[in-house]
Amino acid sequence: MDDRIDRLQRLSAKKDGLLSLAGGLPADELFPRKQLAHAFLSVIGRPSCPALQYGWPEGSEGLRGWIADRLAARGACVRAEDVIVTSGAQQAVAIAAELIGIDGRSVATEDETYPGALDLFRDRGARTVGSEARGIPPDAACVYVVPGASNPRGLGIGVGRRGELLASGKPLIVDEAYTELRFDGRVDRPLCADARDRVYHVGTFSKTLAPGLRVGWLVTPREVAGAALRAKRDLDLQAGSMAQAVLEAYLGLGDFDERLARARRTYASRASRLACALRRELPWVRWVEPEGGFAIFVETDLSGVDEARALAIASGYGVSYDPGSLFRPGGERDPFAFRLCFSFLAGPSLDEAVRRLKRALGEIRARRAA
Amino acid sequence: MDDRIDRLQRLSAKKDGLLSLAGGLPADELFPRKQLAHAFLSVIGRPSCPALQYGWPEGSEGLRGWIADRLAARGACVRAEDVIVTSGAQQAVAIAAELIGIDGRSVATEDETYPGALDLFRDRGARTVGSEARGIPPDAACVYVVPGASNPRGLGIGVGRRGELLASGKPLIVDEAYTELRFDGRVDRPLCADARDRVYHVGTFSKTLAPGLRVGWLVTPREVAGAALRAKRDLDLQAGSMAQAVLEAYLGLGDFDERLARARRTYASRASRLACALRRELPWVRWVEPEGGFAIFVETDLSGVDEARALAIASGYGVSYDPGSLFRPGGERDPFAFRLCFSFLAGPSLDEAVRRLKRALGEIRARRAA
Repeated sequence: MDDRIDRLQRLSAKKDGLLSLAGGLPADELFPRKQLAHAFLSVIGRPSCPALQYGWPEGSEGLRGWIADRLAARGACVRAEDVIVTSGAQQAVAIAAELIGIDGRSVATEDETYPGALDLFRDRGARTVGSEARGIPPDAACVYVVPGASNPRGLGIGVGRRGELLASGKPLIVDEAYTELRFDGRVDRPLCADARDRVYHVGTFSKTLAPGLRVGWLVTPREVAGAALRAKRDLDLQAGSMAQAVLEAYLGLGDFDERLARARRTYASRASRLACALRRELPWVRWVEPEGGFAIFVETDLSGVDEARALAIASGYGVSYDPGSLFRPGGERDPFAFRLCFSFLAGPSLDEAVRRLKRALGEIRARRAA
Repeated sequence: MDDRIDRLQRLSAKKDGLLSLAGGLPADELFPRKQLAHAFLSVIGRPSCPALQYGWPEGSEGLRGWIADRLAARGACVRAEDVIVTSGAQQAVAIAAELIGIDGRSVATEDETYPGALDLFRDRGARTVGSEARGIPPDAACVYVVPGASNPRGLGIGVGRRGELLASGKPLIVDEAYTELRFDGRVDRPLCADARDRVYHVGTFSKTLAPGLRVGWLVTPREVAGAALRAKRDLDLQAGSMAQAVLEAYLGLGDFDERLARARRTYASRASRLACALRRELPWVRWVEPEGGFAIFVETDLSGVDEARALAIASGYGVSYDPGSLFRPGGERDPFAFRLCFSFLAGPSLDEAVRRLKRALGEIRARRAA
């Protein structure tokens, strides 16, 4: 990531009254605080208190069982012993990349994708390439894909793309961060159900429940399961015992699916509100109605825009977003684009944020014309 | 680690009535459960609930300030902005190793040291070499050291060794996991106070408070601070927000130093109990009285012992320990040795564990003689 953009985003985050469409944060109104507090108090009192003690590198048995059962119910041949609990989805992707070996090779992704994965792949010596329009390069080490609802577009992968991924014969890093957050509630058969020996399946509670817990998971092809566990242990011994224990107790309350349904409704409503505001205030930009996830990816006809300068202007108008180049495997700045997250702000704030964005874009355009 | 030993340790952990001298677990009686519950309830109610939301990769500002102040009070020139909160000390060591670049090189350590670091260095392509008796090899990429109270011996580094480390000119990975757990309460000037530009300073709350939180820290030389933060973000975005928030609130209670003093007393008393039992039951083994930490490292005159078989015998007698080869940079099995942790079991159980160990060692010796 451009250091100037990082600095600007940090400054924006501290600015009073700024409306942030950046960052991909879940709505904090949705956090099940009471239930998590209940879960915490139930685990902190247990004999010998496993929530505060060391645990095994693979994670808690109950949690792994819950994750496996959920995948099995979707058609995948996954048992509890196949699951490694990770410190968020990011670590699961990092371990997958390590096992596949991407240094000096190319990693194929969607034409826009999650910046945390792009940065990781690049820092590990890989070249990242978009593979939707141009197809999967024959020499790619693997394909990284965010199915169900992509990041930043919130779109599912079509049947054709799914077939292409399966037919590629490549290792697939399948990041299901948003898969259960489609507005229509549809949760597709996981790719690991059809290519168990090539899929590195990644999941997380960060978007559905709370990112502050840092609990995700990884299911690798069986032949590298031992190496994956060793990699996990080398990296940080284990995911947090406290977070796992609290989660396991919370899941035992049976509240999760109802909460997920509520999250889908909340995000669908916010997506629709943001879409309306965009149609009203910015009829000249391009975007596709999202099917799920947290954001709308907006493209403009502008080229040659200095992204850091544009973000500084937006911040001056009291709004922020994530610049488009962050999501592009090739890092292109043209055409000028940005991700707008509807996940974090409530409806009226979304309207106001888009009004501010309109003024900011007016100035960005004018400066370019000047 | 030998897979057979890993399997045996897992079986032992499940065995009813087994007394474990393995694993390096802190005493669960020392966990400040009530205070952590109080801290949790105070943070879960905060507006927008940062404990459940994403945070910055470097960690919470308050926690970084606390860590920096504590280091500064010991003479180091460290500010809050120099500290990265990590997912335990293991991750801090992993990031340090990544920044130093150890692949294909040698890493010098104490003549026995922490197995998690040895495994990591080896998996990253390094050769690990003991450097106390033989000195630091001129071609070593760095030196890994556990000062204050070493693991597995619980001994401080002497003035001579300290001088040797500083004079070596090598990058130093300084793992202070047990530094504040010397029985005499002495906490030496940190090595980073005297070689700020070469020390990768690693700390953790795992031994002093609770490993289940997974909160440690890393202070790198300033010139690689940016790269360290990027490495942290690539690995897992950030340490757990919930664990950090709970810790920060807990530290605000002002209870930590008193708790640390209590931990020192508890561990000193257990160390003394284990030492007495060893003198009484096993007068023929060699070990050095520990100055702190969690364990006593015991060496015997036996050679050619199959460690996995010996551990299975011990488990049959209802006791377990960590085999000595795990702690040796060269992985040597001779002379037969093992780490006995006094940290986890209360006094009477320590006595009984050593009686069982005596019987197990009797059989191990007899089988060898047969």
